Amino acid sequence: MRLVQFHRHGDVGSIRVGVEHGEGLGVVDLKAFDPSMPSTMRELLEMGDEGLERAQRALSSGQCVVERSDIQLLSPVLAPEKVVCVGMNYRDHCLEQNAPIPKEPIIFSKFPNAITGPYDDIILPSESQEVDWEVELAFVIGRRGKHIKEEDALSYVAGFTVANDVSARDWQMKRNGKQWLLGKTFDSFCPLGPALVTTGAVKDPHNLDVRCLVNGDTVQSSNTDQMIFKTETLVAWVSKFVTLTPGDVFLTGTPPGVGVFRKPPVFLKKGDVVECQIDQLGSIINKVV
Amino acid sequence: MRLVQFHRHGDVGSIRVGVEHGEGLGVVDLKAFDPSMPSTMRELLEMGDEGLERAQRALSSGQCVVERSDIQLLSPVLAPEKVVCVGMNYRDHCLEQNAPIPKEPIIFSKFPNAITGPYDDIILPSESQEVDWEVELAFVIGRRGKHIKEEDALSYVAGFTVANDVSARDWQMKRNGKQWLLGKTFDSFCPLGPALVTTGAVKDPHNLDVRCLVNGDTVQSSNTDQMIFKTETLVAWVSKFVTLTPGDVFLTGTPPGVGVFRKPPVFLKKGDVVECQIDQLGSIINKVV
Repeated sequence: MRLVQFHRHGDVGSIRVGVEHGEGLGVVDLKAFDPSMPSTMRELLEMGDEGLERAQRALSSGQCVVERSDIQLLSPVLAPEKVVCVGMNYRDHCLEQNAPIPKEPIIFSKFPNAITGPYDDIILPSESQEVDWEVELAFVIGRRGKHIKEEDALSYVAGFTVANDVSARDWQMKRNGKQWLLGKTFDSFCPLGPALVTTGAVKDPHNLDVRCLVNGDTVQSSNTDQMIFKTETLVAWVSKFVTLTPGDVFLTGTPPGVGVFRKPPVFLKKGDVVECQIDQLGSIINKVV
Repeated sequence: MRLVQFHRHGDVGSIRVGVEHGEGLGVVDLKAFDPSMPSTMRELLEMGDEGLERAQRALSSGQCVVERSDIQLLSPVLAPEKVVCVGMNYRDHCLEQNAPIPKEPIIFSKFPNAITGPYDDIILPSESQEVDWEVELAFVIGRRGKHIKEEDALSYVAGFTVANDVSARDWQMKRNGKQWLLGKTFDSFCPLGPALVTTGAVKDPHNLDVRCLVNGDTVQSSNTDQMIFKTETLVAWVSKFVTLTPGDVFLTGTPPGVGVFRKPPVFLKKGDVVECQIDQLGSIINKVV
């Protein structure tokens, strides 16, 4: 299933959860189908398997479909407790910067304010002159857990989606005592979407082509088979530290081709359009304003 | 006012907001006084001045007071969007480690899972051998804002409370690519409380004695006048990056006397009791288990 959050044009205060018939196709409005269904993804995930089964029934019914022209897709998750990010997690990205392959995951974070919709604008902050792109495979936690074993980890993952880990390199690399947080967490620095593709619907999350295009030119092109620490390892690792909660978002690292390591470096400017694509999951397209 | 969150013994699933008659005294149950009042601090703060005025009326009424023996205090805020932390923010703490005085605030974060109550246990994780204490003045955001000016900043602060920025030094300083997050965000690594003392009720937040005691011995003793970046500066600084939201918690850094810089270093072990005290705000007391 392709789970989405959306609002209807003219009713922007009201978030709804839906199921897409396919990328860019009509969306079943779950609450219209069954008024007892929740109106946020986080609440749907907290219902566990029952929530997904009821969403599947709504999809199968063929009823309560809203046209894409009537709605705006939002990020498939809003206000998670955590946005967990992984640094240096692609072999080819480590090679690009002559950095050693990490022996353990490197975990940092964004605040949830950074999350924005799959087609929303990236707001260029006046505080940074070095805003960069990073296409990433993201996944979302579906059930609560601590000290999760790798062999059980995928059962804690509700699904996968596409992220752009937008990064202000000046703040990430040169300021804030080298703590990456500030450079990663400006408002709008985490476009997500278009849909949360449920785990069972993704054939092999670690064999997906990943691309980023800026103004139509391909700047990143790799495959999730380059990930050093895969989904299961990341879930197990992070759950040694913190209790994971439905809705928690993980960004799993970016492949080579980011602007900062180009010669000369290239950064985003107003008017640029960034498209992040992952096979089976879809595309997010965000204009820089 | 001293705003608190609590639950009644025997009804641990139900969070209530209250106003303390004084530290350790009876608590007015806001929802008992007025069923239309919210049952979480975050919702109360989202009501703005009206929420505080209604809380004041409840306090003045002398009605609906619950005895301390009937309740357990929780953290005054749960599930904030952000836990913003400041590193190296006391002059005397910089001197202790021969570090230069920072020219800009150093901002890092904890995930909200780290928050625990004022008298709850700190859970020693088997993953760390170097768990340390850090008493800190904390403040909580009361209204939404971005690009807040220093001169307006205090009007965005709902109040002040006491925090222990519990830190696993091995993870903070030697692992995770030197990103501090993991060492700071284990479950239970952010005891908060006992009350959110509203801004108007704190005489001068930057002239408060701050102490930490481990098993009754004073290990940290300083004053918030040693803070390099004060509340107003921190609000203005962080709001250049992110939109602040009611309930956001700031931990403003720790004075000298932490365990890791002692010779030899001292770390917490099972059975230790850590008490963090700040004048006018109160004490939090947490056992290490």
